[in-house]
Amino acid sequence: MYRTHTCGELSIKHTGTKVTLAGWVQTIRKFGSITFVDLRDRYGLTQLLFNEAMSVKLEANPLGREYVLQATGTVTERTNKNLNIPTGEVEITVESFLVLNKSAVPPFTIQNDTDGGDDLLMKYRYLDLRRPELKENLLLRYNVSRATRSYLHQQGFIDIETPFLIKSTPEGARDFVVPSRMNPGHFYALPQSPQTFKQLLMISGYDRYYQIVKCFRDEDLRADRQPEFTQIDCEMSFVEQEDVLQMFEGLIKYIFKEVKGIDYTEAVERISWEYAMWNFGNDKPDTRFDMRLLNLKVPGYVFSESLNEVKDEFNKLHTSVSLEEFPVFANAETVIAISVPGASEYTRKQLDELTEWVKRPQIGMQGLVYIKSNEDGSFKSSIDKFFKQEALQAIASYTNANKGDLLLILAGKEEKTRKAISELRLLMGERLGFRNKNNFKLLWVLDFPLFEYSQDDNRWVARHHPFTSPKPAQVEAIINNDPVIEDPAAYLKHAYANVKANAYDMVLNGNEIGGGSIRIHQREIQEKMFSALGMNEEEAKEKFGFLLEAFEYGAPPHGGIAFGLDRLCAIFGGSESIRDFIAFPKNNSGRDTMLDAPASIDKKQLSELNIRLTDL
Amino acid sequence: MYRTHTCGELSIKHTGTKVTLAGWVQTIRKFGSITFVDLRDRYGLTQLLFNEAMSVKLEANPLGREYVLQATGTVTERTNKNLNIPTGEVEITVESFLVLNKSAVPPFTIQNDTDGGDDLLMKYRYLDLRRPELKENLLLRYNVSRATRSYLHQQGFIDIETPFLIKSTPEGARDFVVPSRMNPGHFYALPQSPQTFKQLLMISGYDRYYQIVKCFRDEDLRADRQPEFTQIDCEMSFVEQEDVLQMFEGLIKYIFKEVKGIDYTEAVERISWEYAMWNFGNDKPDTRFDMRLLNLKVPGYVFSESLNEVKDEFNKLHTSVSLEEFPVFANAETVIAISVPGASEYTRKQLDELTEWVKRPQIGMQGLVYIKSNEDGSFKSSIDKFFKQEALQAIASYTNANKGDLLLILAGKEEKTRKAISELRLLMGERLGFRNKNNFKLLWVLDFPLFEYSQDDNRWVARHHPFTSPKPAQVEAIINNDPVIEDPAAYLKHAYANVKANAYDMVLNGNEIGGGSIRIHQREIQEKMFSALGMNEEEAKEKFGFLLEAFEYGAPPHGGIAFGLDRLCAIFGGSESIRDFIAFPKNNSGRDTMLDAPASIDKKQLSELNIRLTDL
Repeated sequence: MYRTHTCGELSIKHTGTKVTLAGWVQTIRKFGSITFVDLRDRYGLTQLLFNEAMSVKLEANPLGREYVLQATGTVTERTNKNLNIPTGEVEITVESFLVLNKSAVPPFTIQNDTDGGDDLLMKYRYLDLRRPELKENLLLRYNVSRATRSYLHQQGFIDIETPFLIKSTPEGARDFVVPSRMNPGHFYALPQSPQTFKQLLMISGYDRYYQIVKCFRDEDLRADRQPEFTQIDCEMSFVEQEDVLQMFEGLIKYIFKEVKGIDYTEAVERISWEYAMWNFGNDKPDTRFDMRLLNLKVPGYVFSESLNEVKDEFNKLHTSVSLEEFPVFANAETVIAISVPGASEYTRKQLDELTEWVKRPQIGMQGLVYIKSNEDGSFKSSIDKFFKQEALQAIASYTNANKGDLLLILAGKEEKTRKAISELRLLMGERLGFRNKNNFKLLWVLDFPLFEYSQDDNRWVARHHPFTSPKPAQVEAIINNDPVIEDPAAYLKHAYANVKANAYDMVLNGNEIGGGSIRIHQREIQEKMFSALGMNEEEAKEKFGFLLEAFEYGAPPHGGIAFGLDRLCAIFGGSESIRDFIAFPKNNSGRDTMLDAPASIDKKQLSELNIRLTDL
Repeated sequence: MYRTHTCGELSIKHTGTKVTLAGWVQTIRKFGSITFVDLRDRYGLTQLLFNEAMSVKLEANPLGREYVLQATGTVTERTNKNLNIPTGEVEITVESFLVLNKSAVPPFTIQNDTDGGDDLLMKYRYLDLRRPELKENLLLRYNVSRATRSYLHQQGFIDIETPFLIKSTPEGARDFVVPSRMNPGHFYALPQSPQTFKQLLMISGYDRYYQIVKCFRDEDLRADRQPEFTQIDCEMSFVEQEDVLQMFEGLIKYIFKEVKGIDYTEAVERISWEYAMWNFGNDKPDTRFDMRLLNLKVPGYVFSESLNEVKDEFNKLHTSVSLEEFPVFANAETVIAISVPGASEYTRKQLDELTEWVKRPQIGMQGLVYIKSNEDGSFKSSIDKFFKQEALQAIASYTNANKGDLLLILAGKEEKTRKAISELRLLMGERLGFRNKNNFKLLWVLDFPLFEYSQDDNRWVARHHPFTSPKPAQVEAIINNDPVIEDPAAYLKHAYANVKANAYDMVLNGNEIGGGSIRIHQREIQEKMFSALGMNEEEAKEKFGFLLEAFEYGAPPHGGIAFGLDRLCAIFGGSESIRDFIAFPKNNSGRDTMLDAPASIDKKQLSELNIRLTDL
């Protein structure tokens, strides 16, 4: 051992002890004939004092930043204590030292506010990982994993490893594939998730399974997506949705307690997918603040049930105000408002900037309507030409705008407008300080649609995955209706559009951190599901024959969930970027610039694998 | 929840409680008008009693083996108790029941002594996994993982995930590669181990790292090898070999205690690689029994130092006996004996069978010489024609054969003969009952050669891997000698042949369960090592430039080890087969016959990846 103690453990009680430390030179400070060196390791910083004689020796073996140094000496009480760090009351009076390794000057400063650009930090990731911020992130990640394992063990789950070299069954995202040398012309695929394996383990009777496991998706990388990512993957037998929800809000609360010291004792709010879409415009709402969406105009055929609670007010509004007076409202499919608390004082400039913001291509709206509900009871709006004060007041009253609030209104096509106002809501929440990263709010979103309409193929695709079970009451709707969509324009009228799934997402501060479902466990329903997704019998058998067959040998009712560990850690760490919570991430082109991977391979390797490159 | 209790938890103290159980039908026994059903889940078996009225209902809903059943009833004390199982004092008097899922008749019986053949068991792995034996194996594996994590956490290690999509650097085994769609013509490789990443983490200052991680090797599969396997991968900074040995024999002892309840308190024996080769004929000796190898004749140039301890006896033998009398001994490079205790009564038939055994192609010897050291003091041998009783006695005395022992002698080329007699030693150990699977013996083998001679390429290859450090005293031997081997026939005389590594293997019952080394942490030595392995500067930079560069920024001294989890579990479980300790293993062709993977993939997938198949 090169040391007797770490750089993080010495304190006043060690005074007089002879110790040997090893670590990295953080700083060197000369004061006349003596020299101070801060020595750093994973555990902390300790000050080394080189007296006059030692300083002379130092001059013969000069140190530099990031040199690896071993030093032996006596623990001494400091006259000038630094109470900000645990070791700050003592220093080591160095009696001998040895440079274990030198260091070139790092390409960027190794501190939290580094001067390194993104590319440089990625190329020298091993130096970036020395920064305290990244070290804290990886330690947090380890703590989250540990807490997860500890809770799941207490609950009777066992960790079972599933294979990485599996079969390609493209459905949804693209698979990464691996050519097999021993089986020429054949390929393995890397798993997008261990979904079918965990279901087989339930059929095998393992009852409660979990795994913290890498998964792979060959997707075009949007910002903050990684081709390989880590899931906390769980499955349980003999459960209903309620059991899963309770088990896993328990998990997240346990992690809060263990990792962040937060007692999250309140019940986790539950809302339906429809409720989320109506009230927040998306399926992973940030419920740390209210600022709900209110429809001034509704397209005829969707979400009718969820609108019941505001129906009376909606009708009252429409009897007192003729929104059609304003041509933009008249021509729009949807008109949606949010009431921004205390923002009636927004200046013309601020409102113009918001208008520009919604007109950006990423949002893509034509414009923004505002109504200021002034403190003095008057109203000022961008549509004063079309509406009298009474009409503005009626709109403000319907949208629960108080004095001092600012109403923001978007109009246009249903889906686009809802998405845009949802983004605007998040922006305003951010600006008003409602999205404090140290404030955590969990939410269950339930009753997702089972199917999603694919415009490209004019067919149904699985919203979650093909193994998700429909609500029991709606199984008949699937069995009794042909999946074919006769009229693409009216796909929402197809019986499948309203089938809800036994599926649930857990949302934390506006991010989906986990999702799962109660699975299908009967062969007939699974077959019907495959056929609903446009798979013929032969194809279903080729891709998932093993699972269909397994359902014949006593498959228990089962369900589960998977959490995205990278994202979970990022949110716990108060960051937007999952990359900062992965030791060796890839960039947006899926490249590891440190390794320079992917790269070309030898002709011999290609030929052994029985493949060749096509002309590029 | 479909149940109030599991099938493993009810006992006499629950008598009178109303419970609901869910599980699989293990057996159905009818006695007149009543029916007994044993219901099984992961946790145990519970007997259900269907009285006359319930049995009538059962007839309307007949059960079969492996049906999934939910039953509600009252816990009752059994008249006919089964004290072999924890739940055997009670039964459930069923009041209502529901068949949750039916089961077809399984293709084999689901019990430890199943009637299923290997192919059938692999295809229906999910049913095989229901057998108690496999369930125990997977639980043992989970317990080994848990104990590992617990010990390493206590010792300050943190679990850090390293990437799976890395760069292909073929050196040793073949890589599995993954074509990159986003980087046409480029490939990722799957890691053979996280070796370079864990070294980078040491350079980053993480001090103690571990991971239980999948690794991949595209090798031709010998029996009981898997293309994907799991390692317990560990690395430490500021350590010397002794620190690593102590830390990790601590780990294995901890696992023994936690998983097997065994107090392995004795010190782990340590022998050098040369000692192992001389005394046991291989580098992972089973030291549960002695039966050492003794050379009657030695090739001139190898292992001279390790022979010192028997040199005097060796010389004495050769002055008293002229082994050259027997032409086979005269012509052989090596003659090696083992003394098999208490086997002098072996019959002619048994000896003939042993002779056939060593002549099998897998062993490949020409014949077997025996000398019986009879209880009456006489000797009987297959070479009586050439040697007198006194000569046989001298040989017996040199080889420490006692009265009643059987000497077995092989002669031939050094490497082959040593290997053969080592196999013969294991066979005899097995037959004499010295290899009890419930008896565990750990061993460290140290001081491995740094290099191995590759006859194919007439160059040096790394015996462990290119990052292993040489013994400090031998660094000069590498620096001062050219790697080129002028005379292939005399490669053993090259200075590199005698360079020893700071490398160590942990052996358990004759199996290598782990291996590691103190690593090189200086750029110049690493560069010299690459060049010794025949890599030119450009190649070294292309493959491992990131590591060489990392060594320039303050790399600490470091070392580590990796254990093969699959093998470790198999030995702990008293089995020869790692496959029985992997949930979903592949067969000897690297195929998963359950999934039918690998398989062909769509033309669209191939074209997106910019590859095509060559003509097969």
